[in-house]
Amino acid sequence: MKIAVSSTCSLFLTRTLFLIFLIASAKPDPDPLQDYCVADISSTPPFFINGSPCIDPKLAISAHFVTSGLSKPGNTADNPFGFNVTLTSIRNMPGVNTQGLAMARVDIAPLGLVPLHWHPRASEVAIVIQGNVLVGFVDTSNRLFMQQLRTGDSFVFPKAMMHFLFNLDSLNVALVISGLNSQNPGAELVALASFSSNPALPVEVLQRSFRINEQDVLRIRKNLGG
Amino acid sequence: MKIAVSSTCSLFLTRTLFLIFLIASAKPDPDPLQDYCVADISSTPPFFINGSPCIDPKLAISAHFVTSGLSKPGNTADNPFGFNVTLTSIRNMPGVNTQGLAMARVDIAPLGLVPLHWHPRASEVAIVIQGNVLVGFVDTSNRLFMQQLRTGDSFVFPKAMMHFLFNLDSLNVALVISGLNSQNPGAELVALASFSSNPALPVEVLQRSFRINEQDVLRIRKNLGG
Amino acid sequence: MKIAVSSTCSLFLTRTLFLIFLIASAKPDPDPLQDYCVADISSTPPFFINGSPCIDPKLAISAHFVTSGLSKPGNTADNPFGFNVTLTSIRNMPGVNTQGLAMARVDIAPLGLVPLHWHPRASEVAIVIQGNVLVGFVDTSNRLFMQQLRTGDSFVFPKAMMHFLFNLDSLNVALVISGLNSQNPGAELVALASFSSNPALPVEVLQRSFRINEQDVLRIRKNLGG
Amino acid sequence: MKIAVSSTCSLFLTRTLFLIFLIASAKPDPDPLQDYCVADISSTPPFFINGSPCIDPKLAISAHFVTSGLSKPGNTADNPFGFNVTLTSIRNMPGVNTQGLAMARVDIAPLGLVPLHWHPRASEVAIVIQGNVLVGFVDTSNRLFMQQLRTGDSFVFPKAMMHFLFNLDSLNVALVISGLNSQNPGAELVALASFSSNPALPVEVLQRSFRINEQDVLRIRKNLGG
Amino acid sequence: MKIAVSSTCSLFLTRTLFLIFLIASAKPDPDPLQDYCVADISSTPPFFINGSPCIDPKLAISAHFVTSGLSKPGNTADNPFGFNVTLTSIRNMPGVNTQGLAMARVDIAPLGLVPLHWHPRASEVAIVIQGNVLVGFVDTSNRLFMQQLRTGDSFVFPKAMMHFLFNLDSLNVALVISGLNSQNPGAELVALASFSSNPALPVEVLQRSFRINEQDVLRIRKNLGG
Amino acid sequence: MKIAVSSTCSLFLTRTLFLIFLIASAKPDPDPLQDYCVADISSTPPFFINGSPCIDPKLAISAHFVTSGLSKPGNTADNPFGFNVTLTSIRNMPGVNTQGLAMARVDIAPLGLVPLHWHPRASEVAIVIQGNVLVGFVDTSNRLFMQQLRTGDSFVFPKAMMHFLFNLDSLNVALVISGLNSQNPGAELVALASFSSNPALPVEVLQRSFRINEQDVLRIRKNLGG
Repeated sequence: MKIAVSSTCSLFLTRTLFLIFLIASAKPDPDPLQDYCVADISSTPPFFINGSPCIDPKLAISAHFVTSGLSKPGNTADNPFGFNVTLTSIRNMPGVNTQGLAMARVDIAPLGLVPLHWHPRASEVAIVIQGNVLVGFVDTSNRLFMQQLRTGDSFVFPKAMMHFLFNLDSLNVALVISGLNSQNPGAELVALASFSSNPALPVEVLQRSFRINEQDVLRIRKNLGG
Repeated sequence: MKIAVSSTCSLFLTRTLFLIFLIASAKPDPDPLQDYCVADISSTPPFFINGSPCIDPKLAISAHFVTSGLSKPGNTADNPFGFNVTLTSIRNMPGVNTQGLAMARVDIAPLGLVPLHWHPRASEVAIVIQGNVLVGFVDTSNRLFMQQLRTGDSFVFPKAMMHFLFNLDSLNVALVISGLNSQNPGAELVALASFSSNPALPVEVLQRSFRINEQDVLRIRKNLGG
Repeated sequence: MKIAVSSTCSLFLTRTLFLIFLIASAKPDPDPLQDYCVADISSTPPFFINGSPCIDPKLAISAHFVTSGLSKPGNTADNPFGFNVTLTSIRNMPGVNTQGLAMARVDIAPLGLVPLHWHPRASEVAIVIQGNVLVGFVDTSNRLFMQQLRTGDSFVFPKAMMHFLFNLDSLNVALVISGLNSQNPGAELVALASFSSNPALPVEVLQRSFRINEQDVLRIRKNLGG
Repeated sequence: MKIAVSSTCSLFLTRTLFLIFLIASAKPDPDPLQDYCVADISSTPPFFINGSPCIDPKLAISAHFVTSGLSKPGNTADNPFGFNVTLTSIRNMPGVNTQGLAMARVDIAPLGLVPLHWHPRASEVAIVIQGNVLVGFVDTSNRLFMQQLRTGDSFVFPKAMMHFLFNLDSLNVALVISGLNSQNPGAELVALASFSSNPALPVEVLQRSFRINEQDVLRIRKNLGG
Repeated sequence: MKIAVSSTCSLFLTRTLFLIFLIASAKPDPDPLQDYCVADISSTPPFFINGSPCIDPKLAISAHFVTSGLSKPGNTADNPFGFNVTLTSIRNMPGVNTQGLAMARVDIAPLGLVPLHWHPRASEVAIVIQGNVLVGFVDTSNRLFMQQLRTGDSFVFPKAMMHFLFNLDSLNVALVISGLNSQNPGAELVALASFSSNPALPVEVLQRSFRINEQDVLRIRKNLGG
Repeated sequence: MKIAVSSTCSLFLTRTLFLIFLIASAKPDPDPLQDYCVADISSTPPFFINGSPCIDPKLAISAHFVTSGLSKPGNTADNPFGFNVTLTSIRNMPGVNTQGLAMARVDIAPLGLVPLHWHPRASEVAIVIQGNVLVGFVDTSNRLFMQQLRTGDSFVFPKAMMHFLFNLDSLNVALVISGLNSQNPGAELVALASFSSNPALPVEVLQRSFRINEQDVLRIRKNLGG
């Protein structure tokens, strides 16, 4: 009668960390021009546009508006940070297309971290379903706003500001549910975007951005799998 | 370590049913023009605008971005439908101002109903945290899309479409968390807007809209407290 | 030299009441990305997107921007309420595509009613071209704003709020022209969405929403053709 | 029982031609953040913002959403073109504030012209209530789309494109009703903006823009009252 | 090491004056629904929508986000005004699609003029890279705001307001760089839209709009190549 | 006759690096509701809203729409990266308020870097006025798009994506002009937001985000002045 919350970490993930947020969908999106525009995901998209092509609205069924994708804890063990994000998207819930929002299930292992990141296309409001979570964001003048949240507390992350969530509990998994105001909010993880891009950023750009030396750059890259 | 979920109904509500949704906040909102614009709720608003005046951003603190308002089950017993909605808003979370979204905690008593309603300014994506909930919406051609949701299932209600949530369980409270893409989505409950407005709608308008007779109108009005 | 206004009701309608609003078009729409994007309505749409595919702009002609669709009174006799709405849309005026507005011609029989409804995607401003019309809307706190309009008076219905128009004249048809800020505003009629949906809403949802008994539900359904 | 339409021109106008469109209101506007935000027009605005400050929503009354401002024909005789536009706006209909649309009544004297102009903030859809009107717009590649409209015909002018309306009837006034998707669409009349600005545009700019000589500039300026 | 600035006018232009602005791209555009949506310009567009179809995002390469199109002075001699505008667009920089902005390079011959015009879909902020330029715009109440700009000065032209730029220097070319907030701002040149449209506007519409006689109309048309 | 470009670094800056972007202004902003809304910057803002309060439009003058703020090279020597950004904003150009865009002058010392950063509220299109500049952005799947730009080349940075600009020339300053589609785009510099926030981010959050040890965190913090 409640969302299953694993306190041990599962072992295998079908998607890599970098794909986790990509599967997402988006917001402050343009307004819909009809009741719904169920995304056509039957196959490879027939063509590409801003957003997604739709199916004939006459073919829409209830199942297009529902997903069980967020019912199971994600695997927090297949990445070094100890977290997992599962998002609604036009892939698992094609009826969300053109509706301008997404919902995320965030699982965080004991002492796990959703590392510093931002959503280019969305604000986010998060509620802690279970756990003891430290959250914070940094504004454009580098001021930090940080708060310890207990079960039931909610927090808002302003649009496209850098933020993190840290599970302070060393024994139990934390569970957070977030609403985002884009069908495809996207996410850039600060460290991975900097040190694990493909192809790699020039060493000098990283050295000078972070004021570190070449050895530092190479070491961090290696640690982050870049 | 998890959201408290009462299986019995609490007795007193500080706000009436009609206020429940009003306290809400709104969506497909204009984009923010600064990092944040913490609503000025220290007193009666000094003046009124589209949205809310803000405090000096230098005075913003972490507490402005957090609320515990959704941590406790709402009282589902002070209205005849058996539900309660608690929303983030500029009143309990002033930092949500200009961010274009809200989060709702929906408690539904055993066999309770969130009656037919729509949000004039928002789409909604809901996840069942606990329970067995029948949900549905009706589109502008009067097609019904309906689905039975179990714990962990999510559903999207298209923007401003009429919908409901019905707790199928005769023993246990259901708990749903929703994301909406407006700081102040608003809600109109079909039956209350029709039969409990203040002042009352002319009897003839109701008779003719619903194709019922005058006695029906008077009786429904009375039942709904209009 | 003026819009023909029939004082008797015509007999046959080519489209059912439920289709009346569907043919509509809508607004608060995304901004256009070119001068015009004439909807491709030559045949079944080649594919579906948010809005409508367009023809090659080089093939646009003046006739794409004009319609005579609103020149004749609609048939107010083919539905039990005594009204008819004709809207501009991408079907009768393909040049309106991406322009973010629609115009409606509303004919109301003597003592006829445009029953309680809302437009999910538009505000509306109406002018009474001829007649004596009672109008009103109900806000999200169930306050009713109601006004008697005479020929030449205008009224604004806020976005997605429930409203009605009632012809107070027992002898003459009323004629109202409305502007709506969506290419496809859509409309949900409260009573039909509730009692005539396809498939039907569960009896219990209706009983509990309106606080009526099962016999009431079945009777109202039948009266409304549900 | 119909809008009064004078076939003779009235003699005095309380506002000058240049003010006619200014009183207007606007479109593709930001979405509302509450049900309504009735403009505060009790006195000089207490302060200025994007849009208008509002009154306490508790003080809103039905009269704020209605206007009779469009019920009477405007004076088409106090300007050399033979037309008059009356618009809904936050001044005559304060409830239209934040709703993102306006309605215009356009009276055109026999053989009168609504001269070449554009609305910087709105698309427009017009219906001929009475008359025989030639309308047209020019796109950004200087293509002209032109159409003769009869009573009951509608036409859409794409956003911010230059257009005109010309009454082809030498005996009767024409009456047009327009919907625009801004609370304050604004209007720039090509000839007046060019030759009657205050202060005047440099003669050389006008000479070179229109490829005319200095005497032409001075003469046109004089004719247009610049 | 700096943008080449010719002080003599080049002789051949590959595009006509009327096309200069057309090739442009646009703004206050809908928000992007993904990171980027590189326009498909490999051939004739496969179909038409609001904006442009895109290529498979997996096929995006760095070259899609860059253009050298603004590196060379445009030919200011192939039109009678002495100016040239080169814009970023989905044709020369397909990655700008859905990003909601454009950049323009404006070359103005000695004593040349960017004649009176407006952008239907954009505000504009201009910086004088080199020269001594008189700029101005006229608002909807026909007020002129005019300023002499020197190298390094910037000026903002409000959305869709009529404006001009005039090179005050009789010896040197001026160079201006502009940012516009649409992927396809478009432009209507007042004189050309009025007197060189295709087909031509009726003489009477021009006579009456500008208060000139038929001979004036025919002469101006001829001068402007209409 | 061209923008002064210093090849030596100036010595004093009146504003700190952290303020450089803050003074900025922003875009995908809500549309204007009037011709212009000149920001009231005569003193401390009288109150705070989303955006800025304005002056009485009757008091607007030409000087409100112009700035010389971008005419001089900024001081690239008062920060360790060797760059300086000067932006139009409501402070130096109050007429830009509500217009939805900004222009930036970017000076980069020889081998200087505009370090990794993103704009939460804007896309950006940049043109190299002088220099040889390496630019790149990283998308949400950590793909890097990188390009070497020469004088006259333009590049578009998608909305809120992380990017950099690096002056490849060891002798000469580079000069870049950018257009951004927000009146206040804002900027977060990856390294400073992470290691120089105020107050500091918890060491553990930084350790785990970047996979470095505590000594690394303390050293980078110190280097970056955090």
